[in-house]
Amino acid sequence: MKESVIAELKVLPVGTSTPSLSRYISACVSAIKGSPEVSYNVTAMGTIVQGTMEQVLELAQKVHEVPFTMGVQRVVTTIYIDDRRDKAATIESKVGAVS
Amino acid sequence: MKESVIAELKVLPVGTSTPSLSRYISACVSAIKGSPEVSYNVTAMGTIVQGTMEQVLELAQKVHEVPFTMGVQRVVTTIYIDDRRDKAATIESKVGAVS
Amino acid sequence: MKESVIAELKVLPVGTSTPSLSRYISACVSAIKGSPEVSYNVTAMGTIVQGTMEQVLELAQKVHEVPFTMGVQRVVTTIYIDDRRDKAATIESKVGAVS
Amino acid sequence: MKESVIAELKVLPVGTSTPSLSRYISACVSAIKGSPEVSYNVTAMGTIVQGTMEQVLELAQKVHEVPFTMGVQRVVTTIYIDDRRDKAATIESKVGAVS
Repeated sequence: MKESVIAELKVLPVGTSTPSLSRYISACVSAIKGSPEVSYNVTAMGTIVQGTMEQVLELAQKVHEVPFTMGVQRVVTTIYIDDRRDKAATIESKVGAVS
Repeated sequence: MKESVIAELKVLPVGTSTPSLSRYISACVSAIKGSPEVSYNVTAMGTIVQGTMEQVLELAQKVHEVPFTMGVQRVVTTIYIDDRRDKAATIESKVGAVS
Repeated sequence: MKESVIAELKVLPVGTSTPSLSRYISACVSAIKGSPEVSYNVTAMGTIVQGTMEQVLELAQKVHEVPFTMGVQRVVTTIYIDDRRDKAATIESKVGAVS
Repeated sequence: MKESVIAELKVLPVGTSTPSLSRYISACVSAIKGSPEVSYNVTAMGTIVQGTMEQVLELAQKVHEVPFTMGVQRVVTTIYIDDRRDKAATIESKVGAVS
């Protein structure tokens, strides 16, 4: 089986007319929900996803495009990848191991 | 009332003998739980906290020290601060607005 | 001597109407230049600083306030701290060791 | 012409036994130098690269694999992408605009 990574995506539209970004981020989250091969968890600071490296990077690219399709001209996206190969882990098991 | 910020803390011990970090991260999370003035949410990628800027930075410093007290000699800590002053928000309201 | 940390500050004003942020970032860099106790290096993605943890966090707070004084209502600031205690390092020695 | 993005890559090997990472990071930097389609700038906190989104993500994946080929079992990689489409920019012009 292809190993999976756990990653966090933060998409930040720049140069919007108001400080509220929820309209853009909702659309990004919808794009993630529409990618059933990747499991996800929405947090107050981004969305945590799990899938193969290829799936995660493809999804990141797709989500990064969303604010541009809504008229934004600059987007800052952070992809934070935790790739552990000695042991299987899930988004849930990682939280469980530390809280 | 003093305005609060929402921030994410990621603490990464470097040069540990094994890839597992849960022993260190558990101790960091305990330090956060022991700081009742700050509300928090543990995720698979860090801990999201809410408090005044001073409370958050003081807590970040405290948590950053934890792995050093356990013998680690290098720690990489990321403090990601979202500070919005036009409108009150909470960790929960931010998630609710986008999912 | 108090140990120093090397840290990176990224300050991102949100809701600025235009995609250009250089007006705000220039003012942030000026605030860093005005803090002689901290050495710094401006990059395309942020500013790398070196000083004690207290100096760095105090400076981060000061720089984070700059866009608010210019009318911005939301600022996302990332403080990335690399704290190594087995060995002294500088911004220059870190680059030299890997390139 | 395909638009380019400016991105920062930070690769952090976990569980390396010693706090020094320069052996691994040097190898990562060599992989970047061996990718002539992408321009780069090594900093104390990562490497800033410029290329198309596809080139940058392909390079990030390649660099992320480097510590695994050296025996590391966990790698945390951050890809920070600044994608501005209203105006051309380079790594140098971004620094020049703010310092």
